[in-house]
Amino acid sequence: MSTLGARLVRVEPGEVDLELPVRTELTQQHGFLHAGALASVADSACSYAALSLMPAGAAVLSVEFKINLLAPAAGDRVLAKGRVIRAGKTVTVCWGEVVAFSETTGTTGTTATTERLVATMVGTMMTVEGRGLAD
Amino acid sequence: MSTLGARLVRVEPGEVDLELPVRTELTQQHGFLHAGALASVADSACSYAALSLMPAGAAVLSVEFKINLLAPAAGDRVLAKGRVIRAGKTVTVCWGEVVAFSETTGTTGTTATTERLVATMVGTMMTVEGRGLAD
Amino acid sequence: MSTLGARLVRVEPGEVDLELPVRTELTQQHGFLHAGALASVADSACSYAALSLMPAGAAVLSVEFKINLLAPAAGDRVLAKGRVIRAGKTVTVCWGEVVAFSETTGTTGTTATTERLVATMVGTMMTVEGRGLAD
Amino acid sequence: MSTLGARLVRVEPGEVDLELPVRTELTQQHGFLHAGALASVADSACSYAALSLMPAGAAVLSVEFKINLLAPAAGDRVLAKGRVIRAGKTVTVCWGEVVAFSETTGTTGTTATTERLVATMVGTMMTVEGRGLAD
Repeated sequence: MSTLGARLVRVEPGEVDLELPVRTELTQQHGFLHAGALASVADSACSYAALSLMPAGAAVLSVEFKINLLAPAAGDRVLAKGRVIRAGKTVTVCWGEVVAFSETTGTTGTTATTERLVATMVGTMMTVEGRGLAD
Repeated sequence: MSTLGARLVRVEPGEVDLELPVRTELTQQHGFLHAGALASVADSACSYAALSLMPAGAAVLSVEFKINLLAPAAGDRVLAKGRVIRAGKTVTVCWGEVVAFSETTGTTGTTATTERLVATMVGTMMTVEGRGLAD
Repeated sequence: MSTLGARLVRVEPGEVDLELPVRTELTQQHGFLHAGALASVADSACSYAALSLMPAGAAVLSVEFKINLLAPAAGDRVLAKGRVIRAGKTVTVCWGEVVAFSETTGTTGTTATTERLVATMVGTMMTVEGRGLAD
Repeated sequence: MSTLGARLVRVEPGEVDLELPVRTELTQQHGFLHAGALASVADSACSYAALSLMPAGAAVLSVEFKINLLAPAAGDRVLAKGRVIRAGKTVTVCWGEVVAFSETTGTTGTTATTERLVATMVGTMMTVEGRGLAD
């Protein structure tokens, strides 16, 4: 997450929000945030949300995720929300959303913020306790 | 892809391979390539493979993809292979694989390369012709 | 849906609920509703929800869906809820949930209903207007 | 599978094929095999393929699967192939394909069979040993 430049803005049991400023090197040819960056930040939010409900000392492993790219991620920053749908002993299922925010300044100097849902994720996370990550 | 540092190593109709050197800033806390970087490179390989079968002038849009993370992406470089499963007028379905390569040097100075399948992807791509990307 | 025995219990723009009684021939070896029956009813709810926002005369086609099976679908009936996340001209993305209901009768003759979320779905649906379904 | 009418036609370690005759009650409004029936037979082929590599006494549980519907499943019968991509101690990832076969009789009485790939699946299966299915 440090490479992306994301930061935690909310941590509750089963709920984690990450904020990511949109930097030029994370955008694709049309100036929108690249699908991979969206996937990264959504997967991280989901993983942290899953981890927040796991026993102390456990690690979290993303087994798989599916992302739907709903709209171009234009804007100044995105917020990725990770939410636990079901927490099991071994398998945790999470829902993720990425919302893009654009700030526009009007002729009178006032600032308006528009937000748009740009991606959704469903991911399967695994609890890893006291063994290697490879299995 | 330039942020990631990937380069095209194979382009055939419906088949594209991308190679990505594993740099430190793309790895997560355990030293393995981050899931988001794997998703980026696999999505790019799939997108280019889909684009290779589209009409001249068309653009490609990733509608959704699912990635399974099979093993930690350890190694010096990864190869992402994108293959078209079905090319339609509007919707193209692609298969992606990411293989990680590790080079080890033996006591006699010989070098051995081991490879491991670390991720698979199925993605749905859309042909975009003569209109905005947003729909 | 008639083979399954499902019926529409709610139709609003972008929101459709289907109810399915759990019959023996739809259960697997452990007595729970089979994954395929869950997928059928969730896909149908999502498809109808998508169709409810499409132009008159259009048909809906499921391009792909992902289902997470969260808990055994035990009970007397299930309710599948389909909700549109994003409706586009060509592509519509839907969210689906399947809840299982069990009715138990206590010693005093009172009936209690317990409900449990047993599956979630994300699906991509396509609007088909005035052409064959095959593309 | 008995409700669907599918039967095992091939069982090798990590590879299972199921054949399903297309009966009228499994088709949707256009006369094609319903997405739910395709999902059922593909999920079953994948589950059996996963189970074939699990320890004796273990049970298999589908955690999630994604299906892409590539073409209308027209024809007399379908063949669902389940293949293990990666078998782990806890998690097994499978690939599934469904091929539809149509037999046509020519004017001279000869019979030709055409086949078409109609669906692909990627599924995550879990090994369940000596405990309830619910977790």
